[in-house]
Amino acid sequence: MITSSTSTLEKFLKTRKLTKQLCEPLEIEDFVVQPVEFVSPPKWHLGHTTWFFEEFILKKHQQNYQIFDEQFAYVFNSYYESVGEKVIRTHRGNLSRPTVSRIYEYRNYVTNAIERFFNENEISEALEEVLEIGIHHEMQHQELLLTDIKYILGNNPLLPQYKENFNENKIEKHPHKWLTLAEGVYEIGKPDDGEFSYDNEKGRHKVYLNEFFISNKLVTNAEYLEFMNASGYQDVLLWHAEAWDWINAEKIKAPAYWYLIDGCWHQYTLSGLQPLTPEAPLAHISYYEAFAFAQWKDMRLPTEAEWEIAQEKFDWGQRWEWTESAYAPYPNYKKPEGALGEYNGKFMVNQKVLRGGSVATSPEHTRYTYRNFFHANLRWQFTGIRLAK
Amino acid sequence: MITSSTSTLEKFLKTRKLTKQLCEPLEIEDFVVQPVEFVSPPKWHLGHTTWFFEEFILKKHQQNYQIFDEQFAYVFNSYYESVGEKVIRTHRGNLSRPTVSRIYEYRNYVTNAIERFFNENEISEALEEVLEIGIHHEMQHQELLLTDIKYILGNNPLLPQYKENFNENKIEKHPHKWLTLAEGVYEIGKPDDGEFSYDNEKGRHKVYLNEFFISNKLVTNAEYLEFMNASGYQDVLLWHAEAWDWINAEKIKAPAYWYLIDGCWHQYTLSGLQPLTPEAPLAHISYYEAFAFAQWKDMRLPTEAEWEIAQEKFDWGQRWEWTESAYAPYPNYKKPEGALGEYNGKFMVNQKVLRGGSVATSPEHTRYTYRNFFHANLRWQFTGIRLAK
Amino acid sequence: MITSSTSTLEKFLKTRKLTKQLCEPLEIEDFVVQPVEFVSPPKWHLGHTTWFFEEFILKKHQQNYQIFDEQFAYVFNSYYESVGEKVIRTHRGNLSRPTVSRIYEYRNYVTNAIERFFNENEISEALEEVLEIGIHHEMQHQELLLTDIKYILGNNPLLPQYKENFNENKIEKHPHKWLTLAEGVYEIGKPDDGEFSYDNEKGRHKVYLNEFFISNKLVTNAEYLEFMNASGYQDVLLWHAEAWDWINAEKIKAPAYWYLIDGCWHQYTLSGLQPLTPEAPLAHISYYEAFAFAQWKDMRLPTEAEWEIAQEKFDWGQRWEWTESAYAPYPNYKKPEGALGEYNGKFMVNQKVLRGGSVATSPEHTRYTYRNFFHANLRWQFTGIRLAK
Amino acid sequence: MITSSTSTLEKFLKTRKLTKQLCEPLEIEDFVVQPVEFVSPPKWHLGHTTWFFEEFILKKHQQNYQIFDEQFAYVFNSYYESVGEKVIRTHRGNLSRPTVSRIYEYRNYVTNAIERFFNENEISEALEEVLEIGIHHEMQHQELLLTDIKYILGNNPLLPQYKENFNENKIEKHPHKWLTLAEGVYEIGKPDDGEFSYDNEKGRHKVYLNEFFISNKLVTNAEYLEFMNASGYQDVLLWHAEAWDWINAEKIKAPAYWYLIDGCWHQYTLSGLQPLTPEAPLAHISYYEAFAFAQWKDMRLPTEAEWEIAQEKFDWGQRWEWTESAYAPYPNYKKPEGALGEYNGKFMVNQKVLRGGSVATSPEHTRYTYRNFFHANLRWQFTGIRLAK
Repeated sequence: MITSSTSTLEKFLKTRKLTKQLCEPLEIEDFVVQPVEFVSPPKWHLGHTTWFFEEFILKKHQQNYQIFDEQFAYVFNSYYESVGEKVIRTHRGNLSRPTVSRIYEYRNYVTNAIERFFNENEISEALEEVLEIGIHHEMQHQELLLTDIKYILGNNPLLPQYKENFNENKIEKHPHKWLTLAEGVYEIGKPDDGEFSYDNEKGRHKVYLNEFFISNKLVTNAEYLEFMNASGYQDVLLWHAEAWDWINAEKIKAPAYWYLIDGCWHQYTLSGLQPLTPEAPLAHISYYEAFAFAQWKDMRLPTEAEWEIAQEKFDWGQRWEWTESAYAPYPNYKKPEGALGEYNGKFMVNQKVLRGGSVATSPEHTRYTYRNFFHANLRWQFTGIRLAK
Repeated sequence: MITSSTSTLEKFLKTRKLTKQLCEPLEIEDFVVQPVEFVSPPKWHLGHTTWFFEEFILKKHQQNYQIFDEQFAYVFNSYYESVGEKVIRTHRGNLSRPTVSRIYEYRNYVTNAIERFFNENEISEALEEVLEIGIHHEMQHQELLLTDIKYILGNNPLLPQYKENFNENKIEKHPHKWLTLAEGVYEIGKPDDGEFSYDNEKGRHKVYLNEFFISNKLVTNAEYLEFMNASGYQDVLLWHAEAWDWINAEKIKAPAYWYLIDGCWHQYTLSGLQPLTPEAPLAHISYYEAFAFAQWKDMRLPTEAEWEIAQEKFDWGQRWEWTESAYAPYPNYKKPEGALGEYNGKFMVNQKVLRGGSVATSPEHTRYTYRNFFHANLRWQFTGIRLAK
Repeated sequence: MITSSTSTLEKFLKTRKLTKQLCEPLEIEDFVVQPVEFVSPPKWHLGHTTWFFEEFILKKHQQNYQIFDEQFAYVFNSYYESVGEKVIRTHRGNLSRPTVSRIYEYRNYVTNAIERFFNENEISEALEEVLEIGIHHEMQHQELLLTDIKYILGNNPLLPQYKENFNENKIEKHPHKWLTLAEGVYEIGKPDDGEFSYDNEKGRHKVYLNEFFISNKLVTNAEYLEFMNASGYQDVLLWHAEAWDWINAEKIKAPAYWYLIDGCWHQYTLSGLQPLTPEAPLAHISYYEAFAFAQWKDMRLPTEAEWEIAQEKFDWGQRWEWTESAYAPYPNYKKPEGALGEYNGKFMVNQKVLRGGSVATSPEHTRYTYRNFFHANLRWQFTGIRLAK
Repeated sequence: MITSSTSTLEKFLKTRKLTKQLCEPLEIEDFVVQPVEFVSPPKWHLGHTTWFFEEFILKKHQQNYQIFDEQFAYVFNSYYESVGEKVIRTHRGNLSRPTVSRIYEYRNYVTNAIERFFNENEISEALEEVLEIGIHHEMQHQELLLTDIKYILGNNPLLPQYKENFNENKIEKHPHKWLTLAEGVYEIGKPDDGEFSYDNEKGRHKVYLNEFFISNKLVTNAEYLEFMNASGYQDVLLWHAEAWDWINAEKIKAPAYWYLIDGCWHQYTLSGLQPLTPEAPLAHISYYEAFAFAQWKDMRLPTEAEWEIAQEKFDWGQRWEWTESAYAPYPNYKKPEGALGEYNGKFMVNQKVLRGGSVATSPEHTRYTYRNFFHANLRWQFTGIRLAK
């Protein structure tokens, strides 16, 4: 027990450190703003991931724990409705206080308290699991930190760089091939191997798949440009009805972060504005666009079961890959008890599953059974397309 | 060929007649209004179903066909974006003209033209299929006519009756039982038997199901009242996140058409306001409510595959039964060519499948493979709950 | 007393009859719709003007008066918040019931009851004044009836005619002249002559005016076309800040009811679509447009005091003339007691005064002290421009 | 000429310095946020006031002026639509860059350039006047800085203090008295005395006033509490129609910054949260509330002419005093030429005039002819009430 918790503790400390490193290139002002509802200010991420450990471990399990600041629970709670009144999400960007330096004090205070607590006490398996969840929760926010920073800087008219040499694009140089998977009964879901996973991927179970073909490569910028040049955004028959309304209302004509400058497509990256790399994997498209592109190719997106079965045969991890699957509970899905039970189940409607991982995903936060999910219109993650047929 | 088209023609004439009969109890004023975006004015249904036959049969296939009124294509088109500019949906209720009597002229004109055309010409199989689709399209609108009329009258402060003796509720008197279905590979989807079906249910295919249990009865008003009395609408842990926001924003506290009068629950029905019948099957709830109710019972909704496999073992047809399944294409789904291809595929995102049929469904418009679909928040159809576990 | 009330009664009966005549050209469907919030369905006008007499005379003063229908007070109340719960204004167009014929029954019932009551009782001066107010209230709604009908038909894609030979435009043939008024102290407001007027025009009082010049003619369509052709709608410096936002958000590029067909401007009138008459007085412009036009001419709109002092010297009554004056209480303005006190005072903020009258104004409902008022963006009244400098 | 411009230059330098002092108590994070559309981030005020001098003086008049940063014109422009594309106002709070320190560089750069330019060149009267306008423009923003800071901190759940000993309330200790002004012709507007004023107050002119009475004191918190305790916010007859809708939609039940804590009213001030001082002058109410309060007292607000005539007889300068007057051009108002002409005229619709000044008003930025104006619902300025009758 002690051994195991020690190594979890190391992982905890490493994770806490990485979060701080991710924020080092920022100006204080960058920590504060929330240009759109689904983006959170970086300082909120710093506070919220810290609050998780204070709320679910220190407050509940450490005797005489001295809360850092009573009001922080209110400011840094997110969607855990059963824990207390939440600040309305759109308001996060209005809060200049607590300051960044105060939040870093909070982080240190809680990190130290956790370290002390785990070193000085006998830790139950259940509690260690909560720590593990908290670590993964923070890893998830590390990816959001990067994509939110990209949104904040990439929607500023000055288009400032986050950091030199942040490589968003690894070119897939091997030739394109269709991988064939035979019809039959397969198994998907997290095997019961004792390693960490979220509730939503648990419950390994059988699925029946028809024969299918899946690409060994992600769709590239060049391929998507062909679709754009073939007036893909203007052909109503390629789009879902609600997607058509959306691209027209929002005047969507290209992936997010693409800018046409003097007739040449450019892309804002975390290293600043750059001419578009044609052979790089496409990023920052919505499910709607992924679907329309596949329609135009007379193909389709894979289901998440197909993806999971086939994933051994190709490289993945550069882009979150939109699947055709709606986010729904696996058979025999069990919601965890209590506030942590809000974690995943409550989002299982009107969202699409993405598989894989991205250049912004925290190391150790990807696995082939991982079920990511977003609304069909969202584009600020590093999302891409893998075709099937 | 002639034989078959004659009988389709008879079905056509019968369908056209039934639509008119459904409207007989209405006052002219009832034909005009659109109290909410998803409800259409009855006169629009009359015109739109007629326009379908004119647009896809007469204009395309009858030589020298004299269009009844050039402007009607604009007024009565709905979502067939590839056919022409559509009137924005919210505006339907603003149009006092064409008048009801003018629309009936239009109906007669087109009905007669179709009858003449099918009687006097050799009809190709493809064309007969379009007539068949038009008939089923009109049948679908017959159900919408009834539910839209219910909305129009049921949201009028005078709560006028549509018609005496419209029985919405057939009591299921047999005792409750759990039906057990064994684990294994099953087949779902429309068998290729030459009978009519929509594109979305075609493509019979295998699915793997775990063992499951499904109720032989629909949930009753009395059972739902228990949930309400147990503060089901107040317990955040039972609800999807977006459902919780929705019930709070819309102040949803009971099924649609339920009114609490002097401490007693009443229900507006097409025969007027009545005290609630406890043992009648629950109606007019959203998917969100169906899901929360199932959570509260520690059960779940069936998937559409489960429903289709099990349906032989119970009675259905009183309520559209919400399933857990998102509306998505079956494997190998093929979108029909051209404007008719818009029919179903374009809605396959962010909607939920319902199975069964309802007291408002047109006779001959139900079958066990039929995939109905609505957004998770909609309640104006006769929707109900069958539990699974 | 009796004599006077007899003649008021005659006026009452004449007014009630005229309202009905105004509606004769309508189809039943036209009575029902409400295409925009500020337009009311004609059947609502019929009911609301009737409700006024029932509420403020019969219910209050006739013993044992049998209310026609208890629910009508709820349906036909408008903004008299102190009388009872009002139906939200946007919902008027959703109500198919009560039917038009039922509302005509209501009208007859109340008209007859009033006639009987005034014939058979000794009527106090105060009560006769309420009758007088009710008559003027209905006259005001006669104008709204016509302009609402114009909106309903003029925004229907079929552009149906209301009535042949409804002449909206009387050409002012005399040459243009500037009328000069000398600096000094003047008096405005309703003289205390015993004739009917609204509360808002009462309180004759002194004002000090600088010398000013006012046009003897209304601005014509041709003059306004010059402004349009000189890119008046594109020059930000001519517009109020909020006006500029408004014309851009609403894509306003011409007066209401103007349609450019094959390069020629047409105008929808109550007699149908017609080529624009250049020398006719301009109609259906907002205050914002009136102001911008005056700026472009390097002139201005008159204040309401200037208008009232100068009005003897020119013809008026074709168009409601926008003034520069905000709608505000006259010095020593007294709000009437009770529910009728809501009548005018509660609108005295953020509206502009219009003077004169229009081709739609009920005969006997104009006088030179009459203060009409509308929000600066509204255009569905017959509004026009008279320049000053 | 040189002399005069020297003293204007001194005023310029003093003003620039004061702006910086006002910001000294802020944390960097406080400079960034925009919690509501009408509040601007402090750093925007710093940049915008600087941009004014660069745009209208240095760029136009200094040869070879090296613009500090080409993109700042875009970021710091406000409503001067004729100068260039403006950033949409709601977006100001999304911009983390330029940073605060970069903006201070910009300030220094422009301050020094102006100083050098005015010292080294012969300055025309016209140009000196532009400098003067720029100084007054910055003074105006000094008041907005304070009120925006109050909004930012006063709507943060931590309610942080801006600064110790910022005294918002000077108690008026003398007894209440009604001041009487005789009927007659008076003159208002800025006398032509060569001193600075805005375009909107110029054009001294005669007005005719009836006899009136005006209070020698501002309404106090205690008096306003009486109105609240007498259910003033619940009595529809006291309110304008649009005010009633507004207080209900926004759930307005007290002045801004009032908090009821354990049954005691508190007030957030720039020195933090404090128990309400009953005898202090009321602050932070809308025109709607000022009007309703006056109605309840059976009195009224003064017009701006009345205020200006009477102001010699009482103390003012603690609160901007709502008047009954709509903001409109004075007779013979002349809009300045060019972009500066946008300054005032374009707001002369749908706003109310306030007179006096407040505890946040920059010294030297008040005069008895000054016409301030705001929309009727705005409360974040130090607004108050002086009664008339």
